[in-house]
Amino acid sequence: MTFTVRNEDYATATRESFERQALMRTLGAELTHVAPGEVDIAMPFAPDFGQQNGFLHAGTVASIADSANGYAAFTLSPPGMDVLAVEFKINLLSPAKAPRFVAEGRVVRPGRTLTVCLAHVFGVGEGARTAVATVLSTIIQRPAA
Amino acid sequence: MTFTVRNEDYATATRESFERQALMRTLGAELTHVAPGEVDIAMPFAPDFGQQNGFLHAGTVASIADSANGYAAFTLSPPGMDVLAVEFKINLLSPAKAPRFVAEGRVVRPGRTLTVCLAHVFGVGEGARTAVATVLSTIIQRPAA
Amino acid sequence: MTFTVRNEDYATATRESFERQALMRTLGAELTHVAPGEVDIAMPFAPDFGQQNGFLHAGTVASIADSANGYAAFTLSPPGMDVLAVEFKINLLSPAKAPRFVAEGRVVRPGRTLTVCLAHVFGVGEGARTAVATVLSTIIQRPAA
Amino acid sequence: MTFTVRNEDYATATRESFERQALMRTLGAELTHVAPGEVDIAMPFAPDFGQQNGFLHAGTVASIADSANGYAAFTLSPPGMDVLAVEFKINLLSPAKAPRFVAEGRVVRPGRTLTVCLAHVFGVGEGARTAVATVLSTIIQRPAA
Repeated sequence: MTFTVRNEDYATATRESFERQALMRTLGAELTHVAPGEVDIAMPFAPDFGQQNGFLHAGTVASIADSANGYAAFTLSPPGMDVLAVEFKINLLSPAKAPRFVAEGRVVRPGRTLTVCLAHVFGVGEGARTAVATVLSTIIQRPAA
Repeated sequence: MTFTVRNEDYATATRESFERQALMRTLGAELTHVAPGEVDIAMPFAPDFGQQNGFLHAGTVASIADSANGYAAFTLSPPGMDVLAVEFKINLLSPAKAPRFVAEGRVVRPGRTLTVCLAHVFGVGEGARTAVATVLSTIIQRPAA
Repeated sequence: MTFTVRNEDYATATRESFERQALMRTLGAELTHVAPGEVDIAMPFAPDFGQQNGFLHAGTVASIADSANGYAAFTLSPPGMDVLAVEFKINLLSPAKAPRFVAEGRVVRPGRTLTVCLAHVFGVGEGARTAVATVLSTIIQRPAA
Repeated sequence: MTFTVRNEDYATATRESFERQALMRTLGAELTHVAPGEVDIAMPFAPDFGQQNGFLHAGTVASIADSANGYAAFTLSPPGMDVLAVEFKINLLSPAKAPRFVAEGRVVRPGRTLTVCLAHVFGVGEGARTAVATVLSTIIQRPAA
């Protein structure tokens, strides 16, 4: 799909906003891909963000997917706008045990008010890549505070 | 609704499993209510888990709601079982800015394999209580590893 | 919860819009309750709308719940507005076999642009009432075409 | 993705079950593609299944997507099994106005008990193809009644 870019500095704006998301820093997450309608966020496994069996908590998986989808929408926003999640749904596909995780957020349908995004989250390690979750989100665009 | 309790030590079992969820400890979250089909989890606001405007990140809100729903289902499990989220959907209702947050997870329909739960998350502070999110989850029950 | 009514003719407006939903007429559905933030829609079982085992199809259950949630939001709209579903999620709780079904849509959080609603769908018959589905919806409000 | 087929007569079994879904017949829907992990269902527009503006009702769009996802899961089931929707979430992407609609259901992750599927629904007509909805479903497999 080809998207219309409304902010020629979208990549810089995306990186600046991401830097302000304290949770991403806390998780050790980083932006690994930023393109029109596409954002990938990766994080290493860390026991501090786990569930009762030591795997990554579903809420942590959801956190990087929510940000990946939100910033995928943000890459298509005009200057001066901010994005917020209206809602998202996550399906957990397999236990989140891997050395590293990557959430790949993609715009499914851009809109002036609402944008729909789909993220796939993978566990990555030793040459393997396992699907961990699928996340379908609605993002709203608003003038930045 | 009245539920059948299958583990007379459900409250202890719930607390023990919760203690093993490293993410809950990292978030400073605590179990504030455990009853058949009902679990509340509370956490203080902390900037480390915020988004770009300083509010609590949607993924953090989702994390306590996911655990509240999972443990609400767990209170009705027979001994020796574990619970995992199959999927959940979260609607964000208002910005998550408050001194404290509480996720109230409730079983909507218990099942031998799958249990459906609904959580309401509130921001709490200075006498006020604001609805922040609604979370509808499917939980699967499996023999503990 | 107490809601602000913005259209004193909300009940008439709701009934008129419902009359225009051909699908509701096709299903034999009727509005059985209209109040601020609350709409119930009931329909009889009919084999024509069933799935492979003869129960009501999940899509049919979703149809009356989607309309109940949409019209629950509509009762709080100012005059001249229309409502559309942005998204909804349905959890099927038990097989939809009953002589009659009722979807009870309720506003969880009203908003100027987006309203969140929750519907419970019940199978009703011979004094029994069984929970069949739970539906969490986001509704958008727009000027009527 | 490559899937393991457990029923060599999966295509026949899928068509036979589809024939028994009365709602699909009522909607004039037909199976237009059946392959391992993949099912497409198409239907013509018909005013009887519309909403207040004459477009296809979201519940109708959901109906064909729910069946497409359910049967996509069914193609990978062993003989003697039936499938049921546990839950699905639908995002409506644009008004459902077109001469014809097709729901393309695809397995995202097959499982012994639960299978996750994703469907895209398109409006089709006069050479154009417009994305109308995205549907993410959880399907459960059970011994046929």
